[in-house]
Amino acid sequence: MARPTLVSVARDAGVSRQTVSNALNAPDRVAPETLARVLDVVERTGYRPSRAAQQLRTQRAQSLGFRLQPRTDGIGGTVLDAFLHALTEAAQDVGHRVVLFTAADDAQETTRVEDLLGSRAVDGFVLTGTHRDDARTAWLAGRGVPHTSFGRPWPAVGAPAEPPAAAGAEGCWTDVDGAAGTETATRHVWALGHRRVAFVGWPAGSGSGDDRREGWARAVRDLTGRAPSPRDDARVEDGAAPGRAAVLALLDAPSPPTAVVCASDSLALGARAAAVERRAALDVVGFDDTPVAEAVGLTSVRQPLDAAAASVLEQLLALVDGEQPPVPRRLLAPSLAVRRPGG
Amino acid sequence: MARPTLVSVARDAGVSRQTVSNALNAPDRVAPETLARVLDVVERTGYRPSRAAQQLRTQRAQSLGFRLQPRTDGIGGTVLDAFLHALTEAAQDVGHRVVLFTAADDAQETTRVEDLLGSRAVDGFVLTGTHRDDARTAWLAGRGVPHTSFGRPWPAVGAPAEPPAAAGAEGCWTDVDGAAGTETATRHVWALGHRRVAFVGWPAGSGSGDDRREGWARAVRDLTGRAPSPRDDARVEDGAAPGRAAVLALLDAPSPPTAVVCASDSLALGARAAAVERRAALDVVGFDDTPVAEAVGLTSVRQPLDAAAASVLEQLLALVDGEQPPVPRRLLAPSLAVRRPGG
Repeated sequence: MARPTLVSVARDAGVSRQTVSNALNAPDRVAPETLARVLDVVERTGYRPSRAAQQLRTQRAQSLGFRLQPRTDGIGGTVLDAFLHALTEAAQDVGHRVVLFTAADDAQETTRVEDLLGSRAVDGFVLTGTHRDDARTAWLAGRGVPHTSFGRPWPAVGAPAEPPAAAGAEGCWTDVDGAAGTETATRHVWALGHRRVAFVGWPAGSGSGDDRREGWARAVRDLTGRAPSPRDDARVEDGAAPGRAAVLALLDAPSPPTAVVCASDSLALGARAAAVERRAALDVVGFDDTPVAEAVGLTSVRQPLDAAAASVLEQLLALVDGEQPPVPRRLLAPSLAVRRPGG
Repeated sequence: MARPTLVSVARDAGVSRQTVSNALNAPDRVAPETLARVLDVVERTGYRPSRAAQQLRTQRAQSLGFRLQPRTDGIGGTVLDAFLHALTEAAQDVGHRVVLFTAADDAQETTRVEDLLGSRAVDGFVLTGTHRDDARTAWLAGRGVPHTSFGRPWPAVGAPAEPPAAAGAEGCWTDVDGAAGTETATRHVWALGHRRVAFVGWPAGSGSGDDRREGWARAVRDLTGRAPSPRDDARVEDGAAPGRAAVLALLDAPSPPTAVVCASDSLALGARAAAVERRAALDVVGFDDTPVAEAVGLTSVRQPLDAAAASVLEQLLALVDGEQPPVPRRLLAPSLAVRRPGG
């Protein structure tokens, strides 16, 4: 059976196309018996107005653009995939779709954004992977493109430290308080009796990495009354192998730590491997609660991804409607998934 | 500056809207100097015909629907996320987008498909997670909806075993030969000197799980001249904890195996943990080469996801064009990512 169209419905109901359109969009303009006849044909044939036609009227795509990051993140990349699942579900609940695109870098991302905007395929954008000197937000704001980000717009290195809300005063974002997460993790192992808690994180300069380090340092300062020793502050690239090497060095030094808080689950997996090799009783906490953390019984900081997706969506849909979001900048608290090794 | 429209371009160029449309879509119908004037305005103002208007002409959304599976798969779910990355990149290269939706089950998936089709938001669908008694393919075929699947349409349990191509004769699909993967894995550990190779897989009844078991059994039959012992054929739910329990049982039995081939990386992680606990020299091979495999130095069967995405796309775009795909059913060979524990 051919797909029903405005023309076929009009023909079957014996009315004009305008009458069919009125019956669907302005039923009070149509005589009751005519309305009943048109709706009967619509019902019987399963006719639906095409989205393209609706879109020409509303100028809305009912779709949100989302850049899939390149697949280079290993275990850590699964967090953004989990966020995408949450965002797709939340968007669907309010009748919106998520349209994916990819880009090799930020510059290519803005080119893709122009393409999608030019063809009116999306109403706005959700950014991820915000970083220091991120030019995307200003670019989008300058063009009046509705957008929000999952992640704060980190200030440039060397810029005066500002509270997050002031730093991103011009834009909308939702983020998870990473420093609160590592502070909670540090207090957790302290409560288990550990008095030397090291941190294994990334080299200085990444917004989220520095933030996670600061939470650990804050807890150590608060719990011990003095700043953490630089010896307990390992700085390596992300990954299990660098994490293992860093923790072997910590364990082989005099008076090693008995617990480590890590900036990622990848680093934590490496820390675990180092502890097994040295037969050291080392408590390890990861970050992001990726599937592997559950699989190997790793305690890990968990981001509230459903709440983050709901917040991002609320912000973006308000902007698409030309309104200021109720909470334009929202920092969510993470939780700690506490587990025992071996599951 | 207001966004340029067909009307503003026509006004600025001093021509009718039809002439602008002709200039863009049928330039040979327009006098050269008029064409130059229109294109100059188009260039200067950055006007682009809206996708909605184009779509009304072409009746194509240039978009493919993809259901994101519920987030219940743990480590294994990352494979489909990686496939989605590959598909989005391949689709973008040919000017198509991926539109995401979610569904709690297959029945809800078909409802979503009807919504998307009804509003003409997509041209066709990519299915994943095919399983025995999967009703989705017949449902889509019955409605003439272009679709292909990443995964074979597995025959119902008890149905006569048929070669895959015959079993799915009516539909299009791309899949990876899981049996070839576990056969390669078994031959790999055999070549390392192991003469008792067990298999840790899922309970009988899942298409891909039975297929992976069959590859191991085939290799054992071929290498030893007899069928594998049922004692070496562990059947548990997916996950690190069940994998650990299964391998503890294998290791605690008389004359335990010295290598295990697993149906997933989750099971393999558990197998590794069991070997560490029993201080057993056990070689373990996983399946799917998830990020965790690289992180912990686990040898694992790798699916060729870029090739799978390219194949799915070739099949679906042919169907959307009303053509038979060059290779309507394609079974790809996996490879083995060989690693040493510890990375």
